[in-house]
Amino acid sequence: MASDTPKTARAAFRLLAGPVSLAHLDPGGRPLPTKKDKPKTKAKVLADLQERLWAESTVGGRRRVLLVLQGMDTAGKGGVTEHVVGACGPIGVQYTAFKAPTDEEQQHPFLWRIERKVPGPGIVGVFDRSHYEDVLIVRVHDLVPESEWQGRYDEINAFEAKLVQDGVTIIKCFLHISYDTQRERLLARLNDPDKHWKFHESDIDERGYWGAYVAAYEAALERCNTDAAPWYVIPSDDKDYRNWAVGRLLHETLEAMDLQYPRPKLDRDRLQRRLEPE
Amino acid sequence: MASDTPKTARAAFRLLAGPVSLAHLDPGGRPLPTKKDKPKTKAKVLADLQERLWAESTVGGRRRVLLVLQGMDTAGKGGVTEHVVGACGPIGVQYTAFKAPTDEEQQHPFLWRIERKVPGPGIVGVFDRSHYEDVLIVRVHDLVPESEWQGRYDEINAFEAKLVQDGVTIIKCFLHISYDTQRERLLARLNDPDKHWKFHESDIDERGYWGAYVAAYEAALERCNTDAAPWYVIPSDDKDYRNWAVGRLLHETLEAMDLQYPRPKLDRDRLQRRLEPE
Repeated sequence: MASDTPKTARAAFRLLAGPVSLAHLDPGGRPLPTKKDKPKTKAKVLADLQERLWAESTVGGRRRVLLVLQGMDTAGKGGVTEHVVGACGPIGVQYTAFKAPTDEEQQHPFLWRIERKVPGPGIVGVFDRSHYEDVLIVRVHDLVPESEWQGRYDEINAFEAKLVQDGVTIIKCFLHISYDTQRERLLARLNDPDKHWKFHESDIDERGYWGAYVAAYEAALERCNTDAAPWYVIPSDDKDYRNWAVGRLLHETLEAMDLQYPRPKLDRDRLQRRLEPE
Repeated sequence: MASDTPKTARAAFRLLAGPVSLAHLDPGGRPLPTKKDKPKTKAKVLADLQERLWAESTVGGRRRVLLVLQGMDTAGKGGVTEHVVGACGPIGVQYTAFKAPTDEEQQHPFLWRIERKVPGPGIVGVFDRSHYEDVLIVRVHDLVPESEWQGRYDEINAFEAKLVQDGVTIIKCFLHISYDTQRERLLARLNDPDKHWKFHESDIDERGYWGAYVAAYEAALERCNTDAAPWYVIPSDDKDYRNWAVGRLLHETLEAMDLQYPRPKLDRDRLQRRLEPE
């Protein structure tokens, strides 16, 4: 029924509770129809909301936003960052890409390097990959024993709940692409010499583990889909729709925070007099 | 003579060697006529150059750019960051605002906290205030003895020369506004309740030291105007001209670096075959 159609991105893209089957989630779907926001207006509104969040932190506010981007290679974690978060300007925005852990990082529990990059008050943080890699690539390639990674889902939920309590609004996006779309995008990189630096044969190797990654993602999405920090599934075969959808999510999230510019008490008359030309 | 008119931002805004008198530099001047770049094209070109810089670092390149922004309160350090550096998107951009040093920072030499924020390879870094505060506010308010700050000009020159040797291209911009323009901008903040959070009465107090700041800036500009890391003086009474000018400087600097996408040797045929549908 038309009246059941979700009206918000937070409803439309929210992963339902229960078992997850990626095969039943359409990477080309459009669970929410796009509205034609003028890109410039949209960017200005996002930038304004982000400035309010930053302003709040200058008077002691603790709130911040963490956008977690996960998805298969070529799903568009970088593209979303540029198109959506780029609108907010570099002040008050913090981007972190998590690569294979360094030797130092491997000496510590898996959340150690993550905690160090949690955005501070007033910041919109972006994680391009995240602690979820520790139950994804780690699980697919048996990098730690199952007894160890099996405990991590609960650790992640506890970690995220603590962040939320500390004022972090977490937006976890799974950028969902099809196996065919990944092939097209890898071929496109191969056919554009300016993109060869992004091409690693290991991406093709990893593609060979597609099924194992699907299973690992299904487990992570299902077991870490909490009320405190829910998962959103973003159909990402169409880049424009993907960017629009994540932009809407970020926009709605910031709007729901009811961000107001602080109104410190200023004695305007006296201050104005102090600024009179001598 | 018309033929002597500088054609590049790097020539037009470059501070000449020798004694500096801010009174003889026009904060409303236009030493280089603006060209009408379409803002979107300009942003795309900057973003592309910045991506090349980043790409270079993924194959071992050490080069990076550091944009140092200095100027009186309200000169537009934040505005330049948003309008110019915002065009580059958050990936590969690092913004640092230097406030009054923390207790920990004060336990260390003044360059300690600066060194920790120098952009890594591939990054365009922005310093909103910088080590120059250690010969500006420090000198104006006698925060350390003269015997100490007098030595800092040479320390700064040595520090910057070392950075340049290590692959950092430094663009130091003094955003030059007039005393009247500052008054107008402070009044505008006072008259816009959404901007009250940015208003601090201490800004009016500091304005009382305008002359002392001018002297301190003149010394810093003169003594640290090296070939390795020259100063540029940006007329900043007009915000649009200021943003355009710094954008041109950044653009020319990146262009002069002759940035090329790395071309790793790929066996395209073989890789393409590996991507054939099974």
